[in-house]
Amino acid sequence: MKILVTNDDGIASQGIYALVQALRKIGDVTVVAPDRQQSAVGHALTVSEPLRVTHIWRDRQFFGYAVSGTPADCVKLAVARLLDQKPDIVVSGINHGYNTGINVLYSGTVSAATEAMLLGIPALAVSLGSFDEQADCTVAAKTAAYLVERYHTFGLPATTLLNVNVPALPESQIKGVRITRQGQGMWNDTYEERLDPMGRPYYWLRGIYNHLDSDPNADDVAVERGYIAVTPIRFHLTDSDAMEQLKKCL
Amino acid sequence: MKILVTNDDGIASQGIYALVQALRKIGDVTVVAPDRQQSAVGHALTVSEPLRVTHIWRDRQFFGYAVSGTPADCVKLAVARLLDQKPDIVVSGINHGYNTGINVLYSGTVSAATEAMLLGIPALAVSLGSFDEQADCTVAAKTAAYLVERYHTFGLPATTLLNVNVPALPESQIKGVRITRQGQGMWNDTYEERLDPMGRPYYWLRGIYNHLDSDPNADDVAVERGYIAVTPIRFHLTDSDAMEQLKKCL
Repeated sequence: MKILVTNDDGIASQGIYALVQALRKIGDVTVVAPDRQQSAVGHALTVSEPLRVTHIWRDRQFFGYAVSGTPADCVKLAVARLLDQKPDIVVSGINHGYNTGINVLYSGTVSAATEAMLLGIPALAVSLGSFDEQADCTVAAKTAAYLVERYHTFGLPATTLLNVNVPALPESQIKGVRITRQGQGMWNDTYEERLDPMGRPYYWLRGIYNHLDSDPNADDVAVERGYIAVTPIRFHLTDSDAMEQLKKCL
Repeated sequence: MKILVTNDDGIASQGIYALVQALRKIGDVTVVAPDRQQSAVGHALTVSEPLRVTHIWRDRQFFGYAVSGTPADCVKLAVARLLDQKPDIVVSGINHGYNTGINVLYSGTVSAATEAMLLGIPALAVSLGSFDEQADCTVAAKTAAYLVERYHTFGLPATTLLNVNVPALPESQIKGVRITRQGQGMWNDTYEERLDPMGRPYYWLRGIYNHLDSDPNADDVAVERGYIAVTPIRFHLTDSDAMEQLKKCL
């Protein structure tokens, strides 16, 4: 099985390293990942500038290709240029921090999986509930390998990808896997105003995420309760009911 | 009516200028837009760096705030910091180039409207079918003003925004307005390899968009046939059918 691995924390992160170690046991892994942290880039593409590719070595062996772009760029460039053949599956992660609820829209991790789906490739995004760069990724990596091996048995439509969120808990404390839906929530934004050394203002985003869901089948509720949340995601964006409504008005 | 205007082509673009002129006739307009071209940034947010705000003058009067960020940043910063009160509606555009079909996911223009929707504000994104910076934006600007004035009569859910695409045609050749769904299509990517003056390679994206739809109700088909396409968009991303399917497997 040919597996393309990418992420949004950058090719040097611990999360992608743990993921690659786990997936190398079950397939032929190629890593094509951003050369630096790309969090919250959403589905951005680099179109006004060219991309650079650097070969990265870890543990004295070739680890993968670092790309001067976004996660979606990495998938596009890998499939169009760097790989000899289309991968069987794309795995994006392991992200440091959950990508649940509305954060799916901001997530570079999920956007890489989305780009794979758009290119007709099965995909999953894997995120861990900890921002600690040294957090133990074992459970998340094992979960990813488990899902990759069984992916073809799930019978998912080609337009659907899996968004997987794993609590940062020891394996013994994980309560199981739950099939979830995207939870409801919203960010309360504040921008901190600071002054630079010249006395000029600048603004820094500090958001607080408000969970608005208590349904145990919501992804963010499931992870809080100690379950691995597996959410099937698709981008059928048209609001058909609103179409009918609008036809009466316009 | 308090109207917040933004875009992804940058505050200096002709599209936003035409939009502001049209909307000033019907409401109290504040412009908060990126200080430079931000095409294909998707729903990116600036989180690792602070944002700068510059006052921009056009025609010897205050035009608006230029922000060193993405369209989604502009909406967040405007609502959290720059505006005295929440706007009644957010209008993003006029983008130079269509945002139909799957391009909605890559579009900074649409992402600004999406961010507004996430903040509970009615929103529309307006795009014109021409990359010519001098293209006539009259019809698109009139359409935007028309829709803004009537928006409250449409009875749209708070989670739905309007994505509007306007052919680059004189008004006399526009065939009318069509309520559309997101069309099917995909990009065929090629990356051109070039060599820099040092002889090192770099890669530049050249995509060709393949329309895969012939349904007259698809947004990209409607605009090709000379109609203004109005697509109600929402981000209910969970694939519920796949949830049931997965429950049998996991």
